[in-house]
Amino acid sequence: MILIIFNFAAMLEDKNTSKTQLSDLGEFGLIKHLTKHFNITHKSTVYGIGDDAAVLAFEGDQCVVTTDLLVEGVHFDLSYVPLKHLGYKAVMVNLSDVYAMNATATQITVSIAVSNRFPLEALEELYAGIKTAADIYKVDVIGGDTTSSTTGLLISVTAVGQAKADDIVYRNGAKESDLLVVTGDLGAAYLGLQVLEREKEVFKVNPNSQPDLDQYSYLIERQLKPEARKDIPELLKGLEVKPTSMIDISDGLSSEIMHLCEQSEVGVHLYENKIPLDPTVISTCEEFNLNSTTVALNGGEDYELLFTIKQEDYPKIKANPNLTVIGHITNKDQGAALITRANEKIALQAQGWNPIKNN
Amino acid sequence: MILIIFNFAAMLEDKNTSKTQLSDLGEFGLIKHLTKHFNITHKSTVYGIGDDAAVLAFEGDQCVVTTDLLVEGVHFDLSYVPLKHLGYKAVMVNLSDVYAMNATATQITVSIAVSNRFPLEALEELYAGIKTAADIYKVDVIGGDTTSSTTGLLISVTAVGQAKADDIVYRNGAKESDLLVVTGDLGAAYLGLQVLEREKEVFKVNPNSQPDLDQYSYLIERQLKPEARKDIPELLKGLEVKPTSMIDISDGLSSEIMHLCEQSEVGVHLYENKIPLDPTVISTCEEFNLNSTTVALNGGEDYELLFTIKQEDYPKIKANPNLTVIGHITNKDQGAALITRANEKIALQAQGWNPIKNN
Repeated sequence: MILIIFNFAAMLEDKNTSKTQLSDLGEFGLIKHLTKHFNITHKSTVYGIGDDAAVLAFEGDQCVVTTDLLVEGVHFDLSYVPLKHLGYKAVMVNLSDVYAMNATATQITVSIAVSNRFPLEALEELYAGIKTAADIYKVDVIGGDTTSSTTGLLISVTAVGQAKADDIVYRNGAKESDLLVVTGDLGAAYLGLQVLEREKEVFKVNPNSQPDLDQYSYLIERQLKPEARKDIPELLKGLEVKPTSMIDISDGLSSEIMHLCEQSEVGVHLYENKIPLDPTVISTCEEFNLNSTTVALNGGEDYELLFTIKQEDYPKIKANPNLTVIGHITNKDQGAALITRANEKIALQAQGWNPIKNN
Repeated sequence: MILIIFNFAAMLEDKNTSKTQLSDLGEFGLIKHLTKHFNITHKSTVYGIGDDAAVLAFEGDQCVVTTDLLVEGVHFDLSYVPLKHLGYKAVMVNLSDVYAMNATATQITVSIAVSNRFPLEALEELYAGIKTAADIYKVDVIGGDTTSSTTGLLISVTAVGQAKADDIVYRNGAKESDLLVVTGDLGAAYLGLQVLEREKEVFKVNPNSQPDLDQYSYLIERQLKPEARKDIPELLKGLEVKPTSMIDISDGLSSEIMHLCEQSEVGVHLYENKIPLDPTVISTCEEFNLNSTTVALNGGEDYELLFTIKQEDYPKIKANPNLTVIGHITNKDQGAALITRANEKIALQAQGWNPIKNN
């Protein structure tokens, strides 16, 4: 579980303790220092860090490439996000997109821009999280760039994955009557953020209080230390199911269903009573006076996968606790619709998290 | 030539003209808008922008991956860098690393973090430069991310290239008695920056003066619109020369010679009188009271390539105006040394541009 929160920011601001200045190392020395413990494990990594570019060999396979930026003050708040978790999450955000292609994640590059308010020890924490993620998810860190920023911290990760051409699943393959399936449960990460934001306000008033967050531990862990669904491509392969379409839903279930429908040129019926919710999500929604369906549809940051399968594949997945059928694909003319518990049909709206709009 | 300078900043600050707010489009709409004119030209690009990840197929070839960050206030100053040129340069910075592997650049991803002081029209300029670079250098833009920043503009580009395994050239293959060769000429980009910085100070005092920079046009163009050496891998192939080692020298000739020597476990004799300098570099160094050798060795931002070849390949390259032999590889014990015009031997020092130290 997440043990230390509301402390790390204080460490960053602590001017009295002796910390190593980044400028003492220089760019080349800094990269070398931060990446010295990274190992290469994949056969496809011919050459990792240390030359003008990394060299990869995928033989007859195809490779997938995806990239994401995380910006302090936009995507994360260091007053309650420990840097080690941030490093871990920055990797997860990208791996999730690789798994959404039904591919195996194999390599990442990690670039950071960082202001001089961060001592070396802070970056070591960040890279410890990146290394933990790389070790657990078995991806090679093959490069990156480290530079100053005029303010704050920014992390840019590019992830590379590998798959046989026939195994890759796109967003555009859903067909009428296919079943709509989601992994895991939804809404917890958003609620974790609400809890952390609330406690931050309490902390501002009384910095000595350490909140008892035990009852929210699942929510906070989903927010601060999400796990990408590495297991899903493997599971589907084992079950001999190839989805007809697949998409990462970290931007929100609703908006991503709409992307999938748009690109597949189909409609969908999504059943409100099928949406998987953890009991903590239900109880915390009540506490915060939030509608749990709205939170599940639009909260975002659930690093889960949404996919469609042919009806004939249903017996293969039905017993699996990781997978929930939440709807089915319809004709395009029917649009993307939510079928409520009261059996009303209402149009889905994309209210996914928008990093442009929120700032 | 570069026509408009010291004007663009004013446009950014102009609160009276009606500009499109980024928040009106949202993240997805913004990416779609900015990338709608990008075309896919490479067979290796199976799928570009529009899914969770791009899909690439290099068949039996290897691929190279490199990434670089450019940060406002650290790497560029928008008071004299037009956004179109900045977009172009952000691509060049990365392609140069691909060519330094003796590979063909094939794809890029472009991510930007941008504060809301930038109207949509500014990003359109930036992307126009990116598109121009992608068109001229024949690379497919296959993805990226667009998000807010709390301040300023940051561009993160990842470039992918393709090469046969046997053609890839690393930094670590230089052998004793190999010849040291550099492309183009050196020091101009650094002097271009000095000229622009000087004119910025003049402009601050008298905003109505438009400077006559004709005599510095080569220097300014090298700074604001550098070209990566796409031609060099092609040229070397045509000449049937495979370098024993190669490196991009945009961080400074001196520091990169030292990297090459360190990784190849060799020494070098670099001859001061062989370093290629444009006549404008010599005259402007006199004007600024700078030592032209120091500028060539440590100025940086020359997107040129440094490589070593076997002596027996010398006849193949000697007539080429793009290539200059500037030294030869020695035993490691001799170290990396500059042989001056006075025939003195002094140890090379890495004083390359350091984005960590300078801020």
